[in-house]
Amino acid sequence: MTVIKVLNKPKLKNPLFIEGLPGVGNIGRVAVGYIIEELGAKKFAELYSKHFFPFVMLYEDYRIHLLKNQFYYLKGKKRDIIFLVGDCQSLSPEGHYEIANEILDFVKKFGVKEICTIGGLATGEIEDKPSVLGAVTDEKYIKKYKNCGVEFDAGKKVGYIVGATGLFLGLGKEKGMDGICLLGETSGFPIVTDPKAAEVVLDSLMKMFHIKIDMSKLEKRVKEMEKFIQKVEDLQKKALLQISKEGKAPVKDKEELRYIG
Amino acid sequence: MTVIKVLNKPKLKNPLFIEGLPGVGNIGRVAVGYIIEELGAKKFAELYSKHFFPFVMLYEDYRIHLLKNQFYYLKGKKRDIIFLVGDCQSLSPEGHYEIANEILDFVKKFGVKEICTIGGLATGEIEDKPSVLGAVTDEKYIKKYKNCGVEFDAGKKVGYIVGATGLFLGLGKEKGMDGICLLGETSGFPIVTDPKAAEVVLDSLMKMFHIKIDMSKLEKRVKEMEKFIQKVEDLQKKALLQISKEGKAPVKDKEELRYIG
Amino acid sequence: MTVIKVLNKPKLKNPLFIEGLPGVGNIGRVAVGYIIEELGAKKFAELYSKHFFPFVMLYEDYRIHLLKNQFYYLKGKKRDIIFLVGDCQSLSPEGHYEIANEILDFVKKFGVKEICTIGGLATGEIEDKPSVLGAVTDEKYIKKYKNCGVEFDAGKKVGYIVGATGLFLGLGKEKGMDGICLLGETSGFPIVTDPKAAEVVLDSLMKMFHIKIDMSKLEKRVKEMEKFIQKVEDLQKKALLQISKEGKAPVKDKEELRYIG
Amino acid sequence: MTVIKVLNKPKLKNPLFIEGLPGVGNIGRVAVGYIIEELGAKKFAELYSKHFFPFVMLYEDYRIHLLKNQFYYLKGKKRDIIFLVGDCQSLSPEGHYEIANEILDFVKKFGVKEICTIGGLATGEIEDKPSVLGAVTDEKYIKKYKNCGVEFDAGKKVGYIVGATGLFLGLGKEKGMDGICLLGETSGFPIVTDPKAAEVVLDSLMKMFHIKIDMSKLEKRVKEMEKFIQKVEDLQKKALLQISKEGKAPVKDKEELRYIG
Repeated sequence: MTVIKVLNKPKLKNPLFIEGLPGVGNIGRVAVGYIIEELGAKKFAELYSKHFFPFVMLYEDYRIHLLKNQFYYLKGKKRDIIFLVGDCQSLSPEGHYEIANEILDFVKKFGVKEICTIGGLATGEIEDKPSVLGAVTDEKYIKKYKNCGVEFDAGKKVGYIVGATGLFLGLGKEKGMDGICLLGETSGFPIVTDPKAAEVVLDSLMKMFHIKIDMSKLEKRVKEMEKFIQKVEDLQKKALLQISKEGKAPVKDKEELRYIG
Repeated sequence: MTVIKVLNKPKLKNPLFIEGLPGVGNIGRVAVGYIIEELGAKKFAELYSKHFFPFVMLYEDYRIHLLKNQFYYLKGKKRDIIFLVGDCQSLSPEGHYEIANEILDFVKKFGVKEICTIGGLATGEIEDKPSVLGAVTDEKYIKKYKNCGVEFDAGKKVGYIVGATGLFLGLGKEKGMDGICLLGETSGFPIVTDPKAAEVVLDSLMKMFHIKIDMSKLEKRVKEMEKFIQKVEDLQKKALLQISKEGKAPVKDKEELRYIG
Repeated sequence: MTVIKVLNKPKLKNPLFIEGLPGVGNIGRVAVGYIIEELGAKKFAELYSKHFFPFVMLYEDYRIHLLKNQFYYLKGKKRDIIFLVGDCQSLSPEGHYEIANEILDFVKKFGVKEICTIGGLATGEIEDKPSVLGAVTDEKYIKKYKNCGVEFDAGKKVGYIVGATGLFLGLGKEKGMDGICLLGETSGFPIVTDPKAAEVVLDSLMKMFHIKIDMSKLEKRVKEMEKFIQKVEDLQKKALLQISKEGKAPVKDKEELRYIG
Repeated sequence: MTVIKVLNKPKLKNPLFIEGLPGVGNIGRVAVGYIIEELGAKKFAELYSKHFFPFVMLYEDYRIHLLKNQFYYLKGKKRDIIFLVGDCQSLSPEGHYEIANEILDFVKKFGVKEICTIGGLATGEIEDKPSVLGAVTDEKYIKKYKNCGVEFDAGKKVGYIVGATGLFLGLGKEKGMDGICLLGETSGFPIVTDPKAAEVVLDSLMKMFHIKIDMSKLEKRVKEMEKFIQKVEDLQKKALLQISKEGKAPVKDKEELRYIG
């Protein structure tokens, strides 16, 4: 029961797939959310899954909202982009693999050959000038993106990338899609969203994929997004506490797992 | 292995689907149980699932009872109603999604387009005049039911609705069914059943769906139902304790999860 | 991956299905094990499952043994019997349902319409004259077996029956098979096997199903079986300890779950 | 979602299947890894699974690596060999069964009739002259390999074999493949790799299967492999800590589960 509901089927030109799900500092979530809003990307599909938390959220005092991931597309001159954002990642370890697998098969049908995932790297310190660290599935990307402000030594600072941010690239490679992961340095918990780290990641994204984004509203918009993200995190923490009192808890507190990914 | 056993296939006229599974204060369970008894709704299907606790209960000293959910129908003048009650909800997070999914597909075949789920909201205080809070999948219900004693600001007091009470609406919307959730305010644990909260919810239900119910036996009947509900809860708690000693426990103690839902 | 390997397909006459898997006091395990040996029942199928512990045992210093359940049959004058014994029950809650479901579908093909499961009831006291408590899926069995030394008030002393002992009857009824559960009173932990309780259960079984068994070797044989049963339990406990150190443990320590079932 | 990706399909002559996945002292991992390197075995398939940890590793500062098991083959005069090595074993109990099952079905298609698994036995003491203990699925192997330095009394020192090392033999027997398990004595935790134990196991392997291996580089190579193995273990421990803070942890810390297997 991982369902992708297709709202419409855009024809896409050599689309790049950019992932920005919640994670460490929610850098991917806010960076990609900002691009979607600023450039007016269009939603074309939604995903929900039994691997998400078993609750619905309440919006605007009374509206019921099922936890979801959303797919958007953006038409470009040379190539199009598919964006993935959402409320949450999988609750169970197997769910991470299963959902990533479904999503990759789905975007592959639109012709995706290149993937870019975005996460955060918790440094434990306030970063005045956060770096963007890169990891790739193929060496060619290091040359290709060497002038885009990405330091290709993520492996020196962190040994693994947890969840969607890592698995999209690991599993993607198995399915013939190569790609790059951008990790913005951030202090980590208890920061909910980190606009500075999101900004440096956006800087790199703009250079890498020749996107133009007006950054002037970033901080304001990130603060607005933060309310909602904070709410989901709080609810998940509450739900986890509730559930873990009973002996077994679902896997992932975003507060914790945001250490990486 | 989630099996719906159909006892007979009634032809139903634009049926409303009302859920009353065990949860916070067991408000849905006793309110719906009372309607079924008072109005003589007829059982037409049963569900059991590998996601329930792995035990059978003993009734009347010697009778073995598999944990189940039950479907009843009630013929009305303008429209019919399907009721769902039962012994328990899912033990695992994924199970909540899977069971809700099966049930929705099942009731949809009978023509269900509208869903009403009933839960409780634990306030931590004895409520002399408990409110009924509402949450909806579509704004139209707020107008439609504005004179039925429901306060449409559940989202101010609670951020999420756990389990069946929430997922039936969230997943239902995805399948083309809209609906409303009624949460009766109740003190919460350690109250097993709350007849007062059940009464205000029943009041709203009567107004919303033009049902007439004689409330004079409510308190007495709720106390009678309480014995059985208490028993199931005690057994589940016992089973959880037993199981959690061994390091891993199934997910959900109803005592705990009745916080919401 | 729950596999039933059929060694041969006996033609059976109205076969009764008797279950004796490990549980409280291992009463079913040793009682059924003793009948199999004494009356020379023949093994005709074996089951293994991903729901069992993920280890193999070592027999006789060097021989590798996969954890299994075994099916035996015994030809009788009026009717035949299928026995189920084995090394263990499921590790996960869902596994209990899935394995019981597979087994019931399997034995139903041989014409089984009646089920008898055997478990123990931990009283916490040394029982000089342990009783046999009964629970049934249909009232008719109370009349039928009223003179067989079974007290049909299990429900007064215990509210539920965990695992295979309970689910075979609960799920069996759904599949058109009725039956009875016999629970021998036993002190419970830390007794591994209880020959006295096994004896009273065997007494009832002989009366109920007109089986003749020479009981003279019972105590000796139970002590012999105990070595093996003890070993499996010790290994499972060890494995659970090992696994639970890592934060999540598989579900069921037989020492614990033998409280009932 | 357990995928075996076949890189090429070698024709193999009565191939022996040798397993060397991470485990106690990583004896199998380093012994089989050394043979593969020394004799130039060729990789022909890879496996990844939703039952592995939900993260990717970072190699060489920037390269993303999905957790995998790898299949190699080696052509011999009389018979060929399939080797299995890898980054990790399953995270969940069911996963152990499912992955072993997939692998056995896969290698069976190449004609495998004999299996040799390699693990470690933690003795808690520094072993100057570690023994190699053997366990078999069929007595014939005791005769066959009696002059190969294997003591066939594993069952006296250990009662079970956890994970792949045990299940390949237990499940293999069910699929018509017999075999032997070699356990090298090692002190156990906190030793990461034990070249001495690997050496005695390699000695036995050379005698048993008439393989010639130059042992002069063993210690050096094991130390080199240790860096990588240590890294995977550290990451898994870190991931487990992270995850277990949230109440539920995936099953298996290699540090712990290396007690046996």
